[in-house]
Amino acid sequence: MGFAEPMRAHLPQHISQLQTPCLIVDTSKMTRNVARATGRLTGSDTKLRPHLKTVKSVDAISFTFSGRKIPATVSTLKEASEFGSAGYRDLLYAVAVSPQKLQQVHALRRTGVDLKIVVDSISAAHAVANSAAAEADPLPVLIELDVDGHRSGIGREDAGLLVQIGTILNNSAAELAGVITHAGESYGTVTDDGRAQAALIEQQVSVELAQTLRGANLPCPIVSIGSTPTLFSNAPVDGVTEIRAGVYMFFDLVQAGIGVCTEDDIALSVLATVIGHQQHKNWIITDAGWMALSTDRGTSSQQRDQGYGVVCDETGRPFEDLIVVRANQEHGIIARRPGTELAEIPDLPLGTRLRILPNHACATAAQHASYNVVDTGGNITAVWPRFGGW
Amino acid sequence: MGFAEPMRAHLPQHISQLQTPCLIVDTSKMTRNVARATGRLTGSDTKLRPHLKTVKSVDAISFTFSGRKIPATVSTLKEASEFGSAGYRDLLYAVAVSPQKLQQVHALRRTGVDLKIVVDSISAAHAVANSAAAEADPLPVLIELDVDGHRSGIGREDAGLLVQIGTILNNSAAELAGVITHAGESYGTVTDDGRAQAALIEQQVSVELAQTLRGANLPCPIVSIGSTPTLFSNAPVDGVTEIRAGVYMFFDLVQAGIGVCTEDDIALSVLATVIGHQQHKNWIITDAGWMALSTDRGTSSQQRDQGYGVVCDETGRPFEDLIVVRANQEHGIIARRPGTELAEIPDLPLGTRLRILPNHACATAAQHASYNVVDTGGNITAVWPRFGGW
Repeated sequence: MGFAEPMRAHLPQHISQLQTPCLIVDTSKMTRNVARATGRLTGSDTKLRPHLKTVKSVDAISFTFSGRKIPATVSTLKEASEFGSAGYRDLLYAVAVSPQKLQQVHALRRTGVDLKIVVDSISAAHAVANSAAAEADPLPVLIELDVDGHRSGIGREDAGLLVQIGTILNNSAAELAGVITHAGESYGTVTDDGRAQAALIEQQVSVELAQTLRGANLPCPIVSIGSTPTLFSNAPVDGVTEIRAGVYMFFDLVQAGIGVCTEDDIALSVLATVIGHQQHKNWIITDAGWMALSTDRGTSSQQRDQGYGVVCDETGRPFEDLIVVRANQEHGIIARRPGTELAEIPDLPLGTRLRILPNHACATAAQHASYNVVDTGGNITAVWPRFGGW
Repeated sequence: MGFAEPMRAHLPQHISQLQTPCLIVDTSKMTRNVARATGRLTGSDTKLRPHLKTVKSVDAISFTFSGRKIPATVSTLKEASEFGSAGYRDLLYAVAVSPQKLQQVHALRRTGVDLKIVVDSISAAHAVANSAAAEADPLPVLIELDVDGHRSGIGREDAGLLVQIGTILNNSAAELAGVITHAGESYGTVTDDGRAQAALIEQQVSVELAQTLRGANLPCPIVSIGSTPTLFSNAPVDGVTEIRAGVYMFFDLVQAGIGVCTEDDIALSVLATVIGHQQHKNWIITDAGWMALSTDRGTSSQQRDQGYGVVCDETGRPFEDLIVVRANQEHGIIARRPGTELAEIPDLPLGTRLRILPNHACATAAQHASYNVVDTGGNITAVWPRFGGW
């Protein structure tokens, strides 16, 4: 719980006692989402390496995986440090390392965390090689691949560069541990076929470039791919040793918009209170502005623009076509989705409590210091602190 | 400083020792910005009531106002509590209150904070009247006005409603303290004239509706208006008792885009490190993604779209037309502004440190736990902790 026992008596016991805005988690949905991901890889040799960057809470991850110290992925050294201290020892820092962070990496590894890192250039490989030698640390390193032009990594047109980087690492005090990629463009797919195609390319290019390394007599034990959209496609995973995904634990409106989940699967919401109305405009004003929801407008480029979030009642049942159309820092403006009929705006008096489903769970969760875990009866069964920073 | 002395030895002394991403504040610019705001009201009876929602740091505000416990504005009860504990006693909570927050308001007032609140409906006025009576708390209440259709408040077409709300409050154990408005539409103006017009309307409608209350024999001692864009217009402030503004202490690219400041006035930036390149695309990748910059795209609707921020060197000198064109959670992609010549991309090797100027200072600062105060020589002269939450 993250609270000392003497404070417990003062803590809210029911959703109706929570001050707003705050984060709500529905663990029945979270459990279902996690089981679905596990099911996707049942019977294959490919392992899941969940990404902790969405949830960023040791208590939440401990609940989700029943206390097992799963192999996991992190996006910051802060996450590596927090989860490392909590006993998670097999961690992959999936963002290309800057030379300035290597001392922190070695320090974390000296605490017993098997932290693996990522590079995608000759200069980074040299920096890592030098640092591994100076620290006598057989640091495992993955080379980042670019399968879809999304951001970082070595593309198939640069196979020669890939072998050069692999050779530098393999001849160093560090350990060439494999390849890693992220099919980030899969977030922009609009059909299941498009998503399956993105997943297929992710798998094929990764396996092909792993073979390029092996063909040059270089080791490539790990082939790490993944994103939530490609995890839930039906593309083959042959030759892939692990899949990384994080947002699937909560899901969100962006994922619903590309067909990876339904709105009913979304386990994360922001509890808000009605603080006013503009009757002339059919606006309902709440105390959940962008500070609580984030400024993420991930659905703005999707077929169904969800504004700053979908509006539900306090139990989590969505109102038809009611969304947060505008967000100031501490004000959310709720109205009917543009283009829909205005006649049926529900009567939501001052003080009414609502839940807002987020566009992007990673961004919305990051605006809060803890999760309130609420059961279907509205009872608060746990409070999970979360952390931010780097 | 927020750190105990024994830790000081381990703290970075120079910008080059900071781990990235992190927030940087240039106090010479901040001091200049604050002096400019003070100068705007010199010789008038109108007082400045700075908004603390941007900075959210007791240390920063103490520095900025030389330790004076200024009258101030807050957007959350958390801000009221933090600044109240630090000795700031004249506070205005400028978001319409929900009935559920009244107990917290009374509790804060019992600690000696003269906290004023805001309502904009009959139901809220009744809730406040009842609560003030039950707690025997002569709570000062301002009625929110809507001068430009931006969000909450009573418009001039509802002058009768305004008098009704005023009468309820005036006949209650609470105290009718005045009117408050925020010309939020001024952020969307594109010319100095348009901004001056927005400021004029803000002043005129507020004074007119204050007179409506007085004409009904109701008190209206406070006429509180404001926003950074209207503060820095040349519109008259006659009849206005106070102006609220917050972002002017730092300024940001949105404010520069509407002509309120120049890019050189922006006191806040995010320090980032180059972690890679995509040579084929003229992309530079850094470790400052949206988690460090925020997902705020406030300049996207302006004439000059600044992407996720303007790129400067480590000393704060901007590169011509170099912006953060995309942001993933922990990756920022830097490229030339779309439409500009690609030939002159500067050579920024792995490990190069950069500063990114933010679209929206409120949103970017909210992603961080502290400010690193850096002088022109790159020395860290202070670390100011900041808080979030509600």
